[in-house]
Amino acid sequence: MTTRNIRVEMLRTTPVEKQRIEIVERKGLGHPDSLCDGIAEAISVALSREYKKKCGIVLHHNTDKTLIVAGSSAPKFGGGEVISPIHVVVAGRAIKEYEGMDFATDTVALRATKDYLRRTVRNLDVESHVVVDCKLGKGSADLIEVCRLKDEMPYANDTSFGVAHAPLSETEKIVLNAERRVMQELREKEKAIGEDMKVMGVRDGDKICLTVADAIVSRYVDDYDHYMEIKSLLTEFVKDVAQEFTEKEVNVAVNTGDTPQAVYITVTGTSAEMGDDGCAGRGNRCNGLITPNRPISMEAASGKNPINHTGKIYNLLANKIANEIVERVAGIEEVYIKILSQIGHRIDEPQVASAQIVPSSDSNFNAIENAVRKIIDENLAEIGKISEMIIEGKLSTF
Amino acid sequence: MTTRNIRVEMLRTTPVEKQRIEIVERKGLGHPDSLCDGIAEAISVALSREYKKKCGIVLHHNTDKTLIVAGSSAPKFGGGEVISPIHVVVAGRAIKEYEGMDFATDTVALRATKDYLRRTVRNLDVESHVVVDCKLGKGSADLIEVCRLKDEMPYANDTSFGVAHAPLSETEKIVLNAERRVMQELREKEKAIGEDMKVMGVRDGDKICLTVADAIVSRYVDDYDHYMEIKSLLTEFVKDVAQEFTEKEVNVAVNTGDTPQAVYITVTGTSAEMGDDGCAGRGNRCNGLITPNRPISMEAASGKNPINHTGKIYNLLANKIANEIVERVAGIEEVYIKILSQIGHRIDEPQVASAQIVPSSDSNFNAIENAVRKIIDENLAEIGKISEMIIEGKLSTF
Amino acid sequence: MTTRNIRVEMLRTTPVEKQRIEIVERKGLGHPDSLCDGIAEAISVALSREYKKKCGIVLHHNTDKTLIVAGSSAPKFGGGEVISPIHVVVAGRAIKEYEGMDFATDTVALRATKDYLRRTVRNLDVESHVVVDCKLGKGSADLIEVCRLKDEMPYANDTSFGVAHAPLSETEKIVLNAERRVMQELREKEKAIGEDMKVMGVRDGDKICLTVADAIVSRYVDDYDHYMEIKSLLTEFVKDVAQEFTEKEVNVAVNTGDTPQAVYITVTGTSAEMGDDGCAGRGNRCNGLITPNRPISMEAASGKNPINHTGKIYNLLANKIANEIVERVAGIEEVYIKILSQIGHRIDEPQVASAQIVPSSDSNFNAIENAVRKIIDENLAEIGKISEMIIEGKLSTF
Amino acid sequence: MTTRNIRVEMLRTTPVEKQRIEIVERKGLGHPDSLCDGIAEAISVALSREYKKKCGIVLHHNTDKTLIVAGSSAPKFGGGEVISPIHVVVAGRAIKEYEGMDFATDTVALRATKDYLRRTVRNLDVESHVVVDCKLGKGSADLIEVCRLKDEMPYANDTSFGVAHAPLSETEKIVLNAERRVMQELREKEKAIGEDMKVMGVRDGDKICLTVADAIVSRYVDDYDHYMEIKSLLTEFVKDVAQEFTEKEVNVAVNTGDTPQAVYITVTGTSAEMGDDGCAGRGNRCNGLITPNRPISMEAASGKNPINHTGKIYNLLANKIANEIVERVAGIEEVYIKILSQIGHRIDEPQVASAQIVPSSDSNFNAIENAVRKIIDENLAEIGKISEMIIEGKLSTF
Repeated sequence: MTTRNIRVEMLRTTPVEKQRIEIVERKGLGHPDSLCDGIAEAISVALSREYKKKCGIVLHHNTDKTLIVAGSSAPKFGGGEVISPIHVVVAGRAIKEYEGMDFATDTVALRATKDYLRRTVRNLDVESHVVVDCKLGKGSADLIEVCRLKDEMPYANDTSFGVAHAPLSETEKIVLNAERRVMQELREKEKAIGEDMKVMGVRDGDKICLTVADAIVSRYVDDYDHYMEIKSLLTEFVKDVAQEFTEKEVNVAVNTGDTPQAVYITVTGTSAEMGDDGCAGRGNRCNGLITPNRPISMEAASGKNPINHTGKIYNLLANKIANEIVERVAGIEEVYIKILSQIGHRIDEPQVASAQIVPSSDSNFNAIENAVRKIIDENLAEIGKISEMIIEGKLSTF
Repeated sequence: MTTRNIRVEMLRTTPVEKQRIEIVERKGLGHPDSLCDGIAEAISVALSREYKKKCGIVLHHNTDKTLIVAGSSAPKFGGGEVISPIHVVVAGRAIKEYEGMDFATDTVALRATKDYLRRTVRNLDVESHVVVDCKLGKGSADLIEVCRLKDEMPYANDTSFGVAHAPLSETEKIVLNAERRVMQELREKEKAIGEDMKVMGVRDGDKICLTVADAIVSRYVDDYDHYMEIKSLLTEFVKDVAQEFTEKEVNVAVNTGDTPQAVYITVTGTSAEMGDDGCAGRGNRCNGLITPNRPISMEAASGKNPINHTGKIYNLLANKIANEIVERVAGIEEVYIKILSQIGHRIDEPQVASAQIVPSSDSNFNAIENAVRKIIDENLAEIGKISEMIIEGKLSTF
Repeated sequence: MTTRNIRVEMLRTTPVEKQRIEIVERKGLGHPDSLCDGIAEAISVALSREYKKKCGIVLHHNTDKTLIVAGSSAPKFGGGEVISPIHVVVAGRAIKEYEGMDFATDTVALRATKDYLRRTVRNLDVESHVVVDCKLGKGSADLIEVCRLKDEMPYANDTSFGVAHAPLSETEKIVLNAERRVMQELREKEKAIGEDMKVMGVRDGDKICLTVADAIVSRYVDDYDHYMEIKSLLTEFVKDVAQEFTEKEVNVAVNTGDTPQAVYITVTGTSAEMGDDGCAGRGNRCNGLITPNRPISMEAASGKNPINHTGKIYNLLANKIANEIVERVAGIEEVYIKILSQIGHRIDEPQVASAQIVPSSDSNFNAIENAVRKIIDENLAEIGKISEMIIEGKLSTF
Repeated sequence: MTTRNIRVEMLRTTPVEKQRIEIVERKGLGHPDSLCDGIAEAISVALSREYKKKCGIVLHHNTDKTLIVAGSSAPKFGGGEVISPIHVVVAGRAIKEYEGMDFATDTVALRATKDYLRRTVRNLDVESHVVVDCKLGKGSADLIEVCRLKDEMPYANDTSFGVAHAPLSETEKIVLNAERRVMQELREKEKAIGEDMKVMGVRDGDKICLTVADAIVSRYVDDYDHYMEIKSLLTEFVKDVAQEFTEKEVNVAVNTGDTPQAVYITVTGTSAEMGDDGCAGRGNRCNGLITPNRPISMEAASGKNPINHTGKIYNLLANKIANEIVERVAGIEEVYIKILSQIGHRIDEPQVASAQIVPSSDSNFNAIENAVRKIIDENLAEIGKISEMIIEGKLSTF
């Protein structure tokens, strides 16, 4: 055991699964807030790689302030047009000069933004439907110094924290998987499915109600009847996915605001084309969900630098730790992890790393405590792996 | 009693005050994220008043997507300069035409933004230190229809939720009041105190540690020794405020990243001048705090329209309800409120309004349940008051 | 003969060819000012076609206010990078709604801008080297009314004038053709030739001096010696072209600011990548030249609407008339044309159309006058052809 | 006499005053193009002073690329509103770092822009009617070197030319003075006069026709009858001014596009509020006029650095020389000056300085030639005075 400040505490509480009301939300990949997160993270990954390629280390940057200003559009069955483009403002900081080298941070950011949009929203014509403006500043001088030296442990660039829980509740699993499976499976069969899909799940006792909004792509829909068919298809698909995760009653409602005169269709598959602005850091947390029944961090993980920004690293690490704990340690109903950094201190030595354990009725807390402490300690010792996984694109931040 | 879907549930849990680790954060008024929230809300209030003045009702708008791109500056003891201006991008939606009337939404937004900055950050020269760009779009046609008719109850414009808890823990009270009192009292005596103050509070058992960062204003600081005096003054002041709320041991550390060569000084009193970008909706929740030990909503209350955007109204209402419950109902240790809207339904009839009660050891849950249900029901019946209070500027959203 | 107000006047003057000092300039296609002109015109052509396709007529627009804000770059022999992108701001007016139809003016403008840049500057990666922002407004209401009705003669939208002369002097021909032939012929053989080529010609009596600046493309140049070879190649080529048009002595100097330490190389072939901003309407006149020895119009022809903006149409028409006059009428040394519109009047009935004739020594002015008057009258009668040729892309505006 | 390359040549031509058709235009101070020129020049003057204050010399800058994107407005008799703000984009280059000093170029530019607008357009509320965006780049490295050393003669930063003529014709004097006197005198009496006034003068033989457009300020006009009174007042005033300069017949027409249903009124006094974009360098030449009967330079004098940008200095110098020649040398009907620089050479030794003299019938060309040569030579020797006068704001560039 090390001298790390790890606190493991037993929490006597009603687990979320047994509470009366549970609310869970997921904003899908094409939601304007998620697009901002995705762009922010894509830029950070691209910059990290560019820095490594040019000088062997990842230099300081934070690109977690992307803004999407919605465009306007005129979708119609069988076609439609984007009238005014979506405006993407990429903000943040990135080192532009280091040891005599120049870094084309804006050029890299532009390319990363467009590549991300192109592969995420299939019906978006990035060249004419989107204006990308890049306002990456240089960053303040002191932060520039805190960039990673080759073999050393980085120092935290701020006092911030990461939060996570495990395991996911049934409703959480359903909301997360409903969106993912629609994109992976149903979208391949039914081209009209837009990438901007939002799922709001409410469990009231034993009844789960899913409200789904999907920005149906107008060019693949012949008419109103066809539109209603697609809605049915989507409804059934989501219901089937849900039933894989629960035996509770599940109701699914899609595009509930529709009327025969006005349905939810788009030219591109994202509502950013016509009135929904977006901001990085305002949507899903690192586990892909928004969960008002759970403690969460307000830190935007997407776009922060993967080397010493604890607002990013600790959230991802907390999730990894929480999941490992419920996988490897028996007798745990729920675990809540919080990790708090101290600016200027090594990131593997947080100010405090706390685990709250909701034990099963019959468990031995002493055994649990030791096992949990060990998992936290090991994960902190290997914190550098998180950075590597981020740069390799293996960790999702939203 | 009405037919509103109100759920009151007992929650057996360890109250936060008795948990081992508690983390609480507040970003002060001059923090870039808070500035964005303040601008977003100031614009919404100004637009609401403009709409009312011109046509008697508040028309649809959402201005919750403000972005601050930091400038660059060269502060120095006794003076300093802003080199590149702070760039504020105001985004969102607002109705620009209605029944033959034009609304000068951009002009109103520009004026509101500048007025807000001027009165919030005293040493900011809004005319030359800031560029304000306004990208307010028209909003999608369907939302335009959902604007308030004179005497009717509005319909929810989205499926979203509000979350709140009461009472505040000691640490929460300390963090909230430390910043407020410094701005109200100490700043009047010591001009060098910058409005960008961040307080991170960590309670580890019986020990509270406050990490404070304040963007000291360089022109009022003669030299390093003077700077250190100001830090001492601030440290003592915060400690004194804290001790009003607790008997626990409190440690206060100010501007911990300082070295004799590099201290935290600014020309204007906000770090937005030199490298810290900001986004609306990423900072404090409606109660003025960020509390990872508590359930919270990701909704940005600031800037959303006060008439039918439940992401704003329900968060403010949940706070009002939670506070009323602990004030008026005996035997409650903690209460957690969640209110979820249903798009297209009356906002006084949410999909569900849930209260979780952590009772004192000796309390009668039945009596509590009825009292709580009544408070919730009454507050929903009078939900229009929230809108009025927002427009009158009586409710803080961050 | 019609009642058009045509004035033909004899001008006794020293023809430019016989004046002691003559200065002629041409900014090539890749010069930042010319790029702005080209973009402005490409957008107007694209909008004209879009309007015609959708509603049969060309609606009002003016897109003559394009701005290029230069980027920054790090060219080097054999490679180099664009560090910060070129920022293109497309401004102007275009009708966005007409008889219930929406027009995607911004989308059309973005596409036209990028297509133009892509085909004009071969080594520019439009995706990552350029940010295009579109600020096309709606236009004032009264101008919207003055859009073309199907078969009627349009009414002038302003009081403005067109100016032209013919024939070109030797120096003018040389300057114009030097740039064109380099782009058409030499650039095909030598890839290092950049599209941003500026030619300044000065004739002092019988001696012509050409100062050429060309933004050599760094990736195709191995080293300094290779660079000097390319300069020689370009120098010889320009000299050869010049000698086709004159028997005078011609000196050619290329990239005269070069030193062995700093040569004129670029990553993309245009100086817009690193410090040279551009504006539409600030470069070549309609005949492709800047000629301080000649009367010229300050009107920017590029980007103005081709239907009723006399600032565009009259400049193009004046050039056509001047050239026809010297081709078809004998005894003329020089002709100067000026045509002035009257706002709100038919464009084929200008306030005045004036021709100043510098006759050869032995010519009969009466015969000339009649012939010239007839050519002007015919051209005004067929003024609609100019509009058609513009939309078909058959007339160059710079 | 020096070795400067000065060429004085006799030109036998019909003076403009005796040509049949003459066209002269002036865009007043509040015209969008003139506003751009004024802003560009105000920024250059402010930067020059800032550089001198901080390091004793004027560093390299060019701010001649200002763009105005028009707003939208709803003027009405007795009031009205600006609906969308005017967008000003300030582009160009300025040195931001020099010998360890930082220069707040953007802050200086913002302040200069707003100050200029405030004092030029009285009814413009700069705070809420205008967005000013600043995109001043750093400039390319080589130009940075060519900044002024204390006592040395600067070297030309480009190959460019200045052009001028003298004296002004009657029509030129009328057009120039009509606008100036309206602003200086009539505007003080009649508040409704807008600063955006354009005068187009056409002389056809002995008849002068002035077409005036003025953006009448709506709040000072009670109704249509009052508007017509103001037009009469303006018409008479301009006619009176004109008659001070000529005995020819003068006709004046004001706001000729008016109908009883639609008159030319504005909220602010400039058409930039509602549809007229502007660009620096597209309006008046250094003598305040646009004169298609005269040779002119396309160089934008406004905003260019006053130390070594010959496109600015030579135009101003050429005007000074031309005026001095007609004042001091007898027997001259018209003089045309052209001065051409050579990049990298001392600015007092141009590639060529040419004077074309149109002599009176009885003059002695030899005497004239010597006097003219001497004036040119002296003025070149004292070229530094031009720079000083520019920085002191004593020379108008448009």
